[in-house]
Amino acid sequence: MLFYEVIDILGTVAFAISGVLIAMDKRLDLFGVIIIGFVTAIGGGTLRDLLIGNTPVVWMRDLTYVITILTTATFAIIFSGKLKHFRKSLFMFDTIGIGLYTMVGVEKGLQAELLPVMCIALGTITASFGGVIRDILCNEIPVIFRKEIYATACILGAASYFLLLKFSVPEAYAYIAGIIIVIGLRLLAVKFGLRLPNIYR
Amino acid sequence: MLFYEVIDILGTVAFAISGVLIAMDKRLDLFGVIIIGFVTAIGGGTLRDLLIGNTPVVWMRDLTYVITILTTATFAIIFSGKLKHFRKSLFMFDTIGIGLYTMVGVEKGLQAELLPVMCIALGTITASFGGVIRDILCNEIPVIFRKEIYATACILGAASYFLLLKFSVPEAYAYIAGIIIVIGLRLLAVKFGLRLPNIYR
Amino acid sequence: MLFYEVIDILGTVAFAISGVLIAMDKRLDLFGVIIIGFVTAIGGGTLRDLLIGNTPVVWMRDLTYVITILTTATFAIIFSGKLKHFRKSLFMFDTIGIGLYTMVGVEKGLQAELLPVMCIALGTITASFGGVIRDILCNEIPVIFRKEIYATACILGAASYFLLLKFSVPEAYAYIAGIIIVIGLRLLAVKFGLRLPNIYR
Repeated sequence: MLFYEVIDILGTVAFAISGVLIAMDKRLDLFGVIIIGFVTAIGGGTLRDLLIGNTPVVWMRDLTYVITILTTATFAIIFSGKLKHFRKSLFMFDTIGIGLYTMVGVEKGLQAELLPVMCIALGTITASFGGVIRDILCNEIPVIFRKEIYATACILGAASYFLLLKFSVPEAYAYIAGIIIVIGLRLLAVKFGLRLPNIYR
Repeated sequence: MLFYEVIDILGTVAFAISGVLIAMDKRLDLFGVIIIGFVTAIGGGTLRDLLIGNTPVVWMRDLTYVITILTTATFAIIFSGKLKHFRKSLFMFDTIGIGLYTMVGVEKGLQAELLPVMCIALGTITASFGGVIRDILCNEIPVIFRKEIYATACILGAASYFLLLKFSVPEAYAYIAGIIIVIGLRLLAVKFGLRLPNIYR
Repeated sequence: MLFYEVIDILGTVAFAISGVLIAMDKRLDLFGVIIIGFVTAIGGGTLRDLLIGNTPVVWMRDLTYVITILTTATFAIIFSGKLKHFRKSLFMFDTIGIGLYTMVGVEKGLQAELLPVMCIALGTITASFGGVIRDILCNEIPVIFRKEIYATACILGAASYFLLLKFSVPEAYAYIAGIIIVIGLRLLAVKFGLRLPNIYR
């Protein structure tokens, strides 16, 4: 369906841009910047596909991702100075992206006949591990392990989907509700500066 | 068999605790601490399953791991101040864990009809790469590459298993001997402060 | 064919040595040095095999790699002081290695019936991600993201192969041309100190 594809592309665009910008802060070379953009956008889906044995992984079977990411990276590099004016739009794309990616991951888990808990894990991995791999390649401790409410939103959104199904909500509504809950929680967390407690001895 | 499962759970518990404690030293947030605990416990088995194409990977097919790890992480976070009193018990679980995980990895290699050398590699990966992934996510050079006799014990224990089979020792005895040799070597190495030489120019 | 196998082994040798030398600079222990040598030599091919679902991954099905790498690592450790005299030969092996590994990756992509762009990506991954994993394990930002013309040579060589096929060049010639173009571009880049621009805001 067209709606789904548009959102998927917007999410990919937002993830790729976030990767490009972080790689530029690290002063990588052109190849490094593009690869970090690429990995940020497809890393989560790739790890998900590997874990469930869904190979060749998704971006190898569909040119859309490669084209979207290369185009995005090119524009992001050229217009990086201007991107700060679009920060809010980028944040919205990124947030919509994680909402959608979460439920895509859940769906793939269901197709692989996994238990709900595993589907929730797969959804969270799909939405957040591109950023983890990005941070590792840039030699940083992944930001989602340190200070952002991000994975937590994915987990709660994906869990809501299964909860709604339990209450006999039709599958399509529960799916959309899951996406909206991820997006809503992330927006609220950022608006009110919520974060998980840091844990130490 | 019950014995096997009990040891498997104890090993998982010990690995998860080691991950949680290291993540807490890094002052990660709640999500980060739990994920590092999770990855430490299942990272080695996951990499093993990916390398031989045994997907969905093991923790996705059996709720035991997720439940064990989440419960352990919760307790470890709450009682982290007290855990130092159990240091010896934790070290014993961990050591028993690597003994068992090594032979589980060897067994999976045999099921995949791999050569003994590859089975030894798989056993070592199963027992030690959770810790490698943990250290990478925490932005450290993996400790087993630097100073601990750990993988060496796994390699020698797994190799002993094949050696004993050559001398017509029954499979079950060789299997148990492999586990005991890994555990014994690790205990001896720690007791006598043995370590591999550091190599440099 | 013998020629292919000789080059494959020489490439593996060169990659393993590069890993061993970098691990020694980090003062890892014996196990760490050998593993970094191993991962540098087989990491790219392993990631490629995982992405296309070609499991067990290649080095698990053929003892040649393990034997070659262990032998190489042993010699490299013993004679590390002398290796500087062979720097030029090592660089040549390494360069021949990436040429060959690139086209091996392309070939595997074709066998998996992937699009040319994906085959080019697989070729580049095969030739360059062993080094990426090596650098991550050593807690460095991967060198190919920062300053070396390396992946770029792989991409252009692999792309030339498909371009030549378009112009009805016979497959075997195009294959060899691909290898030679990778090698030639890398040699030129090093000779003239060419590098990609670093990108930052």
